Parts: sequence; structure tokens; C-alpha cells
Amino acid sequence: MTITTPKGFRAAGVAAGIKKSGGRDVVVVVNDGPSASAAAVFTSNRCEAHPVTWSRRILDDGVASAVVLNSGGANCFTGEFGAETTELTANRAAELLQLQPSDVIVCSTGLIGSGDEKFRQGVLTGVKLAVAELADDETAAQHAADGILTTDSVAKTALREGTGYSIGAIAKGAGMLAPGLATMLVVITTDADLESAQLDTALREATRLSFDRVDSDGAMSTNDTVALLASGASGTAADEGEFTSLLVLCQDLARQLQADAEGASHDITITTTGAATEDEAVAVSRAVSRSNLFKTAIFGNDPNWGRVLAAIGTTDAQFVPQQIDVSMNGVMVCRAGTPDAPVDTVDLTPRKTEVLIDLHAGDATASILTNDLTHDYVHENSAYSS
Amino acid sequence: MTITTPKGFRAAGVAAGIKKSGGRDVVVVVNDGPSASAAAVFTSNRCEAHPVTWSRRILDDGVASAVVLNSGGANCFTGEFGAETTELTANRAAELLQLQPSDVIVCSTGLIGSGDEKFRQGVLTGVKLAVAELADDETAAQHAADGILTTDSVAKTALREGTGYSIGAIAKGAGMLAPGLATMLVVITTDADLESAQLDTALREATRLSFDRVDSDGAMSTNDTVALLASGASGTAADEGEFTSLLVLCQDLARQLQADAEGASHDITITTTGAATEDEAVAVSRAVSRSNLFKTAIFGNDPNWGRVLAAIGTTDAQFVPQQIDVSMNGVMVCRAGTPDAPVDTVDLTPRKTEVLIDLHAGDATASILTNDLTHDYVHENSAYSS
Repeated sequence: MTITTPKGFRAAGVAAGIKKSGGRDVVVVVNDGPSASAAAVFTSNRCEAHPVTWSRRILDDGVASAVVLNSGGANCFTGEFGAETTELTANRAAELLQLQPSDVIVCSTGLIGSGDEKFRQGVLTGVKLAVAELADDETAAQHAADGILTTDSVAKTALREGTGYSIGAIAKGAGMLAPGLATMLVVITTDADLESAQLDTALREATRLSFDRVDSDGAMSTNDTVALLASGASGTAADEGEFTSLLVLCQDLARQLQADAEGASHDITITTTGAATEDEAVAVSRAVSRSNLFKTAIFGNDPNWGRVLAAIGTTDAQFVPQQIDVSMNGVMVCRAGTPDAPVDTVDLTPRKTEVLIDLHAGDATASILTNDLTHDYVHENSAYSS
Repeated sequence: MTITTPKGFRAAGVAAGIKKSGGRDVVVVVNDGPSASAAAVFTSNRCEAHPVTWSRRILDDGVASAVVLNSGGANCFTGEFGAETTELTANRAAELLQLQPSDVIVCSTGLIGSGDEKFRQGVLTGVKLAVAELADDETAAQHAADGILTTDSVAKTALREGTGYSIGAIAKGAGMLAPGLATMLVVITTDADLESAQLDTALREATRLSFDRVDSDGAMSTNDTVALLASGASGTAADEGEFTSLLVLCQDLARQLQADAEGASHDITITTTGAATEDEAVAVSRAVSRSNLFKTAIFGNDPNWGRVLAAIGTTDAQFVPQQIDVSMNGVMVCRAGTPDAPVDTVDLTPRKTEVLIDLHAGDATASILTNDLTHDYVHENSAYSS
């Protein structure tokens, strides 16, 4: 089990006819308490979807008892009608669950611009069906994990057991994967007894070091939401030090998102070490992760380190070009800015690919998780909305 | 004719065995004067190639009488040996042409990290062969245009006639096409009688509004150079107002670069209007041009305007999301942040594609020229160095 493993949570995922495939597309997760502490982080895209605007506002008080999520439509750039749909969704869930609408987080994912009357009716019908099926068993957790998927090929779940409490999660994300955040919806539940301020601090730190370091395709979504709900049902007040297991859980999910990225054939970890600051290490790794030429080279199993250096050169990080080392899968192909080991000694056939950059400019290190740029990526994304 | 049309210039392009294909790979362009005024702009990539470092330095005095260019190797990240190769190249040309080495611009293009002994001997041999063939006829100009090509499918040339003088140019560029500059080598010749300071001003302004607005694949090269040589042989001192024909010539070449971008099936002009400033209009158009999801959608003839808005939302430009209009090929698909004309009324089958964004935040306008992201782009760039 995952999100229903922590005590005090029920979930359901149903098919309400929003997805053309007929698959599950509306999910409800409920926190039965005793506590209703919550925190969330959202996309930093200024063009945010209506559910993001809604959820950001209702979480001002650090309290939420339910999350309604739908796949099959992003409800973004759908005008006043779309904003009303989100509000009606929260109202419907609140009515059925005997909550305040302002305690209902709403999340949507799918095509931007989709959110018409049919979509609205689908979501509202789905909420009713889902509430009727709410349960705390394994099937319910699985249905919830399935119901938020779009182009994902597998459900993403994670579970960590703390001392006297647990943390569970479901996640989706396969395309438009870039930071602040990767395109994702994540719901995390815990029965630890924590205040919303503690949840907020822990979630921001965990997100910064996990989801914000996935940059699969450089495209930032309008709908990203990571919500954390705490029921307090375990009666255990996990201390802040121990609740860092949240970070491990988020990193686990981040790896799952990377592994299922659209069309990818390589999971690439780009680690920059010897940076003057952690921010600069992130900037350098991210610049490389966004180079289409680097990404196509990896797809072709070509250790073209010149494209790594060309990307590094676009950043403001401290370095001297003639001091940079680049290794691929353990082979140093560029040492101090000059060719080193022959490129044909690098084996790039494994899906797991490691690129290590040493700037020799300090002691900071950071990694970005990305993917290669493949024919399948082009295919999936040239046909997605049609 | 092109670069040899302005009086006072000779050129040649020869095959020196650097390119595996056996094609022409070393080019020499000579300015026989009477003037030797010159100006150039270079890549802003901090990881710059040895020829860029050399040429930037020797142009400090605004004087140059020859340009040596090679394809088949970038001579970038090739260590001290690579720096020596560039210097030896300038020395060889200077000796044969009875110039100072500090009057010889050097340019290289090809795989980063390639520049070994064989490469060096190829370039040095090529310089000798080319100097022996220098001529001011059409064949010589054509050979020069051919000799700088890499993955380009066609030679790029341009010619503008002013009042009493002319401007000619050759250019290459097909991949790693992004600003500051697009990956390109361009040599522009003119027989106008202008001081180097005048040339510098005119070239920077023309580049800003032409090559710097091509962003085919977001990848910034290490070797970009645009050099402008003025012989003064026409005896005409073009006034500054009239020499703006340089801008028209550069825009012509920029369009040629876009039209021959690796693997592209659409030439996309992204125009942002109603921006608060020109810089913000550029930033918005550029953000869209760098969205792989937008670029794959266009490849699939899919007017997925949500991906345009998602990219706009990553910028700091002034706008209110609910006021943005987006049109594609003349059809407004998003009006004031909501769906407008049905997307199936947009015809994206022509290669020439126009995206018009109105931010309704001011009076400034700017366009970026980009391309779609295709299977052929992935194919060409996954196999380029192997």
C-alpha cells in the first residue's frame, strides 16, 4: 500500500469518462484526522492552471482534508468557466465529505486549454463516484495511483516507514518535466503528528533536493502540485531530524519520474562537482541537461563531450575552461580542457548514464536527473493532442 | 559572385583532406586594399575555440587583411597544441601573403575536441593550396562558400549593391544554432571606404537584429565568428545611414541559416508584440523557441497553443496571463487566455510557420527565427561525431 498505509487516510480512483481511453481519471484522497495539517508546493510557471491558483489560496491557513485530482484535462487557460469548474469541484467534494470547500485541494493534468462543459461534468461525476468508493485498502491506493496518470507508462508510488509513523505517496509525471517543478502531481500522506509549518519546511527542503532536480525536457508545466497531508493518527510527533525520510521518499519518486520520461532511452545523472557554490553546480548540470545536442548524442551512444563543454560555457558559474574535467560512465574523456581517454572506451549502452563534471573551482556538488532526446520523444510529443 | 564582387578581394576554397568526405575544407579570403579596416563579432560562449581567442585578440587594432577558415574540425578544447595550430595557421598565411600574422583572422568549424597533428597538417597544407588559387572570379567565390560548410546542405551567400559600393558574404551554419550567435562562420566583404570603428558599429547593430535572432536549437557554439572586411577599393565612403544595407544582407543570411537547419521541416517565425520592451519581446519569443514540446508539436502540425503559453510563463516579461492572444498562421487560437478559433482551422502544413503572440503590455515587438524538432534532427545529431 502507499497513500493509505499511513493511518487516517482513505482514497479512491474512478473512471468518469474524461480520458478518451476510458481509464481511471478522477481521484479523491481524504484525511480523516485527527489532524488536518497540510502543505504544498506549486509550479513557478506564471501561467498557472486554475486548480493551482485555487489550491495555493486555500492552503494559506495550512489546513486541508481532501485532494481531488483529475487526469485528461489541465483546466488551464480555460477562462472564467475553468475557474468555476475548479470551485464547483471543491464544493462538490466538500458537500459529499462534510468539509469546507476551502479544505479541498484540487489538481488537474492533461492538455492545456481543455476544460469544457463535458470536462466539468466528468470531474463532478467522478468526485461523486470516487467518494462512494473511498477505502483504506491496497486496491483503493492502487486505483488512486492509476487515476492520475497521463502519458505515464507505469504508476509511481513510494512508502517510507518512520519510527511510529509512515509516509506514503502517489505521483504522475512523464512529459513537460522541468524544474520548479517537473510536470507532476504528487500526493504525500503521513500519519505523523506535525504542524503545517513543520510540513511546509520539510516539504520545501525535500522538493528542492528531489523534484526540482529533475529536468527531463526543459519544459515547465502549468499544473505542478506536490501536496503533503498529515493526519496525526499515529500519535507520533516525528522530530524534524527524522522526518528527513520525506526527502528519501521524494528522491525515490523523482527517480521514478525520470525512469518513465516520455520516449527516453537513457536516464542521465549529470553531477557537477568542484563548483564554487551549490547553486552554480545546479546551474552547470542544468545547462547540460537542456542541451538538445548533448541529449541527442547520448541517444546515439556518442560520448560527445564537446557538447557538454559548449553547454557549460553558456553559464555564469566560476570556472576556467582549461581546468574542466568531464567523465562519462567512469571514463575521463576530457581532462583539463583537452581530450583524454579515447571516446571509444566509453560504454553508453546502459540505460543508466553518469556524466561527471569537475570545475575545479570549489567544493560544492549537485546533480540533475535528465533523459536523452529520442525519436520516441519527438513522436509522442508531435502527436499528443491530436 | 559574392565575396569577390566588392573590389579588392580575392578568395579560394580547396580540399586539404580534413573532411572525411574529401570536400573543400580550407578557405582563404584576402583583402588587397587599399584599406584594411575590419571588425568582427564572436560567440559569447565562455568556452571559446582557439581561433576565436586568436581572432578576438588580433582584431583589437581594427585591422585585418585575410581570413583563413577551415571546416572538418573546431580546434576547440584541444589544449596548447590547438592554440599553436591556430598561430601556425596565421603565420603560414602571413608568410605566403606577405602580411603580419596579426592581420590574419582564423576560423574553424567541426567537432569540438578535434584538432590533432593530422588536422594541423591539413590546415597548413590547405592554406598553401588556397593561396595559390586565389582569384576574384565567380568560381573562387563559390569554392570559398563551399569550403566552410559542415552539415549544411547548401552554400549560403548574399550580395547587396550600394551606391558606388557593394557588400558580399559567405556563411555556414546548420546545427548548434543559437544566439550569441547562431553556430556560424560568416565572412562579409565590402569595397566601401569605412573606418574600423564604423564597421564595428554597423556590424554589431546588424548582428543584433539578424544572427542573434536565430535560435534554431538553443545550443550555443564555441566557434561563431562574423567578420567584416572593408577594402575601400570603391573609393566610396558609404554614409552610416546607407550602410544599413548591411542589416538587410545579414537578415538574408539569417533566413538562409534557418532554412537549412539540421533536420527541420518548419521554418518558424515567433513574433511577440504588445511587449513592454523590445528585450522582453525577444525573451518571450526566445522562450517559446526553446520549448521542445512546442517544437515537436509544430513538427506534428499540431497548433498546441498551450505549450506556447507554458513557455511564456517561464519568463519575467510583463504580462497578465488572462490577456494574452496567440495566433498561428493567421488564426487566433487563444484570445485573452482562453480558447478561440478551433485548432483544426489552423493549417500548419506549409514549411513557413508564423506564431504571433500579443502580450497587451506595451508597444514593443521582436521576432525570433526557429525550427521544429524532428526525427531528422534527432537522427543527424545522434550520429554526428561517429
